[in-house]
Amino acid sequence: MNSLSHVDENGRAVMVDVSEKAVTARQALASVKVLLGERLLRLLYDKALPKGDTLAVARVAGIMAAKKVDTLIPLCHPLSIHSVEITFSPDFEKGSLHIEASVRTADRTGVEMEAMTAASVAALTVYDMCKGVEKGIIINELRLEYKSGGKSGTWRRQEER
Amino acid sequence: MNSLSHVDENGRAVMVDVSEKAVTARQALASVKVLLGERLLRLLYDKALPKGDTLAVARVAGIMAAKKVDTLIPLCHPLSIHSVEITFSPDFEKGSLHIEASVRTADRTGVEMEAMTAASVAALTVYDMCKGVEKGIIINELRLEYKSGGKSGTWRRQEER
Amino acid sequence: MNSLSHVDENGRAVMVDVSEKAVTARQALASVKVLLGERLLRLLYDKALPKGDTLAVARVAGIMAAKKVDTLIPLCHPLSIHSVEITFSPDFEKGSLHIEASVRTADRTGVEMEAMTAASVAALTVYDMCKGVEKGIIINELRLEYKSGGKSGTWRRQEER
Amino acid sequence: MNSLSHVDENGRAVMVDVSEKAVTARQALASVKVLLGERLLRLLYDKALPKGDTLAVARVAGIMAAKKVDTLIPLCHPLSIHSVEITFSPDFEKGSLHIEASVRTADRTGVEMEAMTAASVAALTVYDMCKGVEKGIIINELRLEYKSGGKSGTWRRQEER
Amino acid sequence: MNSLSHVDENGRAVMVDVSEKAVTARQALASVKVLLGERLLRLLYDKALPKGDTLAVARVAGIMAAKKVDTLIPLCHPLSIHSVEITFSPDFEKGSLHIEASVRTADRTGVEMEAMTAASVAALTVYDMCKGVEKGIIINELRLEYKSGGKSGTWRRQEER
Amino acid sequence: MNSLSHVDENGRAVMVDVSEKAVTARQALASVKVLLGERLLRLLYDKALPKGDTLAVARVAGIMAAKKVDTLIPLCHPLSIHSVEITFSPDFEKGSLHIEASVRTADRTGVEMEAMTAASVAALTVYDMCKGVEKGIIINELRLEYKSGGKSGTWRRQEER
Repeated sequence: MNSLSHVDENGRAVMVDVSEKAVTARQALASVKVLLGERLLRLLYDKALPKGDTLAVARVAGIMAAKKVDTLIPLCHPLSIHSVEITFSPDFEKGSLHIEASVRTADRTGVEMEAMTAASVAALTVYDMCKGVEKGIIINELRLEYKSGGKSGTWRRQEER
Repeated sequence: MNSLSHVDENGRAVMVDVSEKAVTARQALASVKVLLGERLLRLLYDKALPKGDTLAVARVAGIMAAKKVDTLIPLCHPLSIHSVEITFSPDFEKGSLHIEASVRTADRTGVEMEAMTAASVAALTVYDMCKGVEKGIIINELRLEYKSGGKSGTWRRQEER
Repeated sequence: MNSLSHVDENGRAVMVDVSEKAVTARQALASVKVLLGERLLRLLYDKALPKGDTLAVARVAGIMAAKKVDTLIPLCHPLSIHSVEITFSPDFEKGSLHIEASVRTADRTGVEMEAMTAASVAALTVYDMCKGVEKGIIINELRLEYKSGGKSGTWRRQEER
Repeated sequence: MNSLSHVDENGRAVMVDVSEKAVTARQALASVKVLLGERLLRLLYDKALPKGDTLAVARVAGIMAAKKVDTLIPLCHPLSIHSVEITFSPDFEKGSLHIEASVRTADRTGVEMEAMTAASVAALTVYDMCKGVEKGIIINELRLEYKSGGKSGTWRRQEER
Repeated sequence: MNSLSHVDENGRAVMVDVSEKAVTARQALASVKVLLGERLLRLLYDKALPKGDTLAVARVAGIMAAKKVDTLIPLCHPLSIHSVEITFSPDFEKGSLHIEASVRTADRTGVEMEAMTAASVAALTVYDMCKGVEKGIIINELRLEYKSGGKSGTWRRQEER
Repeated sequence: MNSLSHVDENGRAVMVDVSEKAVTARQALASVKVLLGERLLRLLYDKALPKGDTLAVARVAGIMAAKKVDTLIPLCHPLSIHSVEITFSPDFEKGSLHIEASVRTADRTGVEMEAMTAASVAALTVYDMCKGVEKGIIINELRLEYKSGGKSGTWRRQEER
């Protein structure tokens, strides 16, 4: 464990200085699960529910959210984002929609928050478009899977189980 | 299960017409857990980590996010939000920080997405301020707990277990 | 012709006072044409180009733009928007994509600018997604078709030809 | 005609990766016409209508819009914009106000959308400030005139007629 | 002196609940001074400097800022703003530009922050447009002059001197 | 005194071209005073008023405002901001809260407006959180203290008195 980086010696929040950090290629990958239940998920993917647009709208929402991170998360730096990609994959048995967000840049700081936020907002959009049917949907296990670039180099999630 | 509400008869996304809906007092409550691990959570709350600001910054981020929902979630309506309240409670045994967001309005449509988004962005901000220490932190069980008001009336989460 | 409404007696821009205006149901409908050319338009609609997403992304962009009018057009009032609907119809002979945006509210001022801006941003998004193929695409005849509500009542475009 | 660039192999929208693109000086020039009619245009320019502010407000709106493109057009990249210039020229015979927007940067991707959006929002602002007098005003021929820089080099509109 | 209203019993920031407040007509007036120095102020107003646009741009900036208060000041409520008016008056002897911002609404909470923020951003814009000439310009005495409406009624600044 | 930089030869506002400017490390420091009065300032700092959060919220507001300058001040360029730091110091005798904002970047143009805006919005937030107690609070002497970097080099305020 290293020391926290967003507070100064008196515990006050600061936007940390990245002037001395190198501009390197950076990538981050985050994932999240939307627990729709098997029936609602099948309706989405079997065209009995207008699936196309739900995922299309959620994809656009996730991409746009990645570009708004510095206005949402108070101590994040504005970044030049080079690519955002959102992918969806269904697990019908578990009734779970898996969402992955991948973000790339070449800048002084990483894009972990951009990937986490893109995945989160895509999931919230799926929730929004299904909540008229079922308000109990849970959004689970939002987490970073991978990041590369910068001084700390590559980090990859260890499987917990 | 009712029919989906955000798409027209051809499956195209629309921002549904709420003109005919009544202006009623509405409330929504959402919650989420940030799995920090016991050590990091204790450091936060034992002043060994500058806890105050982490929660203060996350609280402000959550409140501000509730006001930005219509710019984040594509098919949400702009709303006049009357109150936002974010509360944090630690579970040291489980190493989990529990976040609740409560939002109120008197408008034509509910504030479920405002509560869900406020909780989500508060959790993402905690993640952002701790990720220098531990990137593996998981944000879990983002979910609606309660909503009241409007035509569909009161909804309360049934305990799953 | 009435007098201009956005300037005071000295020609200075003001955001006009709508305090005295009545809250009434209001609607506006605007349209625009994107001159893609027959070949590109057919590719879009014949699935030889991934049409679905182009229109889906443009639809989302148009809906979201309707909610941002007060931050784009300096003297527009913030409004509570009740519905936004974007529709696309192709004219293959003319190679033209016709876009219509319909916006509703119940407020003190009309939603003409919301409909005009939604149509405009949907068209710009189509341009953005096709400009890698053809930069010469022209966006033509952005215009109000219809508005209702408020003191001035209903207005409908007279056919020019 | 090249292939479309904003969708992946499955037709899903992506924000394309520009990491490998070179940072080069880039410029784009777009234009649009606002068909005010001779009388309204003369009033604007003959000081019988408070012209100065209409054009001043529209100019500011266009400049500010160029800086918001990544929040309006879903798949556009955030860019560091180096200059924006909006110019107006009247054609009294045709009753048409011609608007040009020129944008420059040195970045990994072009500023065509910034120029197109700046011209469009400047025109919408003129419409907004005149619509109290005449709702029938048409915004016509929004189009790219010129772009330079990047791998594809210089592009200049061919005169159609 | 009453108790502070933006914090709960534990000193935590909250966006206070205005659900129970009445919708009444409300107005606020704020003012600020920009100490340009006599020479720079005269150049501005004597057309030796292109005055028109400086004040026009600052006026637009102030009006637009009034509409963004809920995204700038964390605990402010989103409001439906009914009018914004910015006026400038020079005091050549003192070399001071006086700016007043007046805002009106009919809502559940007052527009003091909208008036204060509009005046502040107009002043910052004047500074921005003059700082190439003189960086030492001071922005002074930003203050509320008057407010009316709501439960607390009318408040008017007492002359200090 | 040099010539004004934000207008072209006809006095029209432009966003000046910074393409030719060098990317250099730049810093700016701005300050402002909030005249709370001794009693209110002591209550803030003596924990009789919930001081912590007032300053915490104002600090977050100031940091976030620095990242929004290009959307607030019309002719400012979007910048990659590398650090923002807000500090508060009380002068109990004078009843004045002193706020300093320091901003750093490495870009083509300076961060004076980012520092000035961050200080201004932090002060406005303090005002917002105290105005329920005292509406007469004055925000005074917003000014640049220091800037470095770029072609014009270092500038430091001369003490006036």
